[in-house]
Amino acid sequence: MELSLNTATVRKQWNLAQIIEGCARHGIRGISPWRDQVAQMGLQEAGRSIRRENLAVTGLCRGGFFTAKDWRDDNRRAIEEAHTLGAQCLVLVVGGLLPGSKDLALSREKVQEGIAAILPEARAAGVPLAIEPLHPMQAAERACVNTLEQALDICDALGEGIGVAVDVYHVWWDPKLASQIERAGKRILAHHICDWLVPTRDLLNDRGMMGDGVIDLPLIRRWVEDAGYAGFQEVEIFSEHWWQRDPDEVLRLCIERARDA
Amino acid sequence: MELSLNTATVRKQWNLAQIIEGCARHGIRGISPWRDQVAQMGLQEAGRSIRRENLAVTGLCRGGFFTAKDWRDDNRRAIEEAHTLGAQCLVLVVGGLLPGSKDLALSREKVQEGIAAILPEARAAGVPLAIEPLHPMQAAERACVNTLEQALDICDALGEGIGVAVDVYHVWWDPKLASQIERAGKRILAHHICDWLVPTRDLLNDRGMMGDGVIDLPLIRRWVEDAGYAGFQEVEIFSEHWWQRDPDEVLRLCIERARDA
Repeated sequence: MELSLNTATVRKQWNLAQIIEGCARHGIRGISPWRDQVAQMGLQEAGRSIRRENLAVTGLCRGGFFTAKDWRDDNRRAIEEAHTLGAQCLVLVVGGLLPGSKDLALSREKVQEGIAAILPEARAAGVPLAIEPLHPMQAAERACVNTLEQALDICDALGEGIGVAVDVYHVWWDPKLASQIERAGKRILAHHICDWLVPTRDLLNDRGMMGDGVIDLPLIRRWVEDAGYAGFQEVEIFSEHWWQRDPDEVLRLCIERARDA
Repeated sequence: MELSLNTATVRKQWNLAQIIEGCARHGIRGISPWRDQVAQMGLQEAGRSIRRENLAVTGLCRGGFFTAKDWRDDNRRAIEEAHTLGAQCLVLVVGGLLPGSKDLALSREKVQEGIAAILPEARAAGVPLAIEPLHPMQAAERACVNTLEQALDICDALGEGIGVAVDVYHVWWDPKLASQIERAGKRILAHHICDWLVPTRDLLNDRGMMGDGVIDLPLIRRWVEDAGYAGFQEVEIFSEHWWQRDPDEVLRLCIERARDA
């Protein structure tokens, strides 16, 4: 599996132009940018620069947040941007509870309706949508889709043009992970890696470098490959620790640790 | 539903003798003590004091940690203590990954074998075992049983004398919660309440008072009742915030909020 860099990994040290250049310099052949960084650089310029370095765009982060007010326009723009960048998928972080609500079931219905509503546009643009189940500790604020099983149930209901992003950080604990990865099969559109630290000190920004935590990365990678996924491994580390380090050191370590895993 | 107090809720302010006396004074008719507090007071003395106040012991916290070294002796003692106190169940926090291991499947096998090994002694002592699925964010360190479905699969495999503790904090996010509570039926041995705060600042000790977070407590309570559970609602709040407050105020608020929920 080739390596891709999710730009969140060094977002505090480098802007997108620097990250693209850094990937090229380190021989990382894929990139998955965040939309705020793309906007800052300019969509066309970002696209040109990525193509110039011949990087695969393994995903665009992110669409989703279907429980927020402006979900429709925002997702329409996200699809256009993913199309312009030639992204292999648009990652959907679906959104948490509806504002002021405790109704998880209703929030989940709203999410599925939102995905169904944007799916025809995504298909027309040739942009596969990748539902990313987020760790249950993010259910209230970021994503009320919290298991691969739940994400695949939505995929089953909606048909073509939609799949899942399997991020080990969010799903490693799941007793049904092996069986659900097998079920996902070709619908695995992205495979994100990092590690779960013990102890974990923050719910958002304390992810570990591969090998520093407890996730059996080779095992999950094997399951994902056995399911038919032949794309990139995408490193995505949200970490106050790694954001303080020399980004070239971070990229070297990502390459080394991904190889070991 | 009557109210029970898990003694962790005010453990930094009061010792067990004070908590027993506090429950009686506030009209809380159930208590669920932690074993370290029982040991500090003395098992016999704790039992006498609880019986004197005529409190139901809705659970003893805790047995489990089957991935640790001394699991066998420790669980044997826990069963004896639960028997002595007349506890309605022994709560099992099953333990996380085996020491130094990333093998979640093996750790889970070890847990099931451990439960199977102590179950005959628990049955003989008349102490039902309550597997408490813990939030996935605790999978590495505390419990590799993380969903009600997984806990019930273990119950199915092991037969009589074992059930589950449904703690809303750990399971509220689960897309299959309603169906699994229905499946649990009479095997629900305890129902713990508190709330999930937004944002949550700590993975262990930032639980919320009922009503301060996003959990739909009345809904889950209804599911639990519909499944046939007729026991106590047990308040269990691990919180640096509430541990700083006047414990009498905390107990008054627990009563008020549990009533509202």
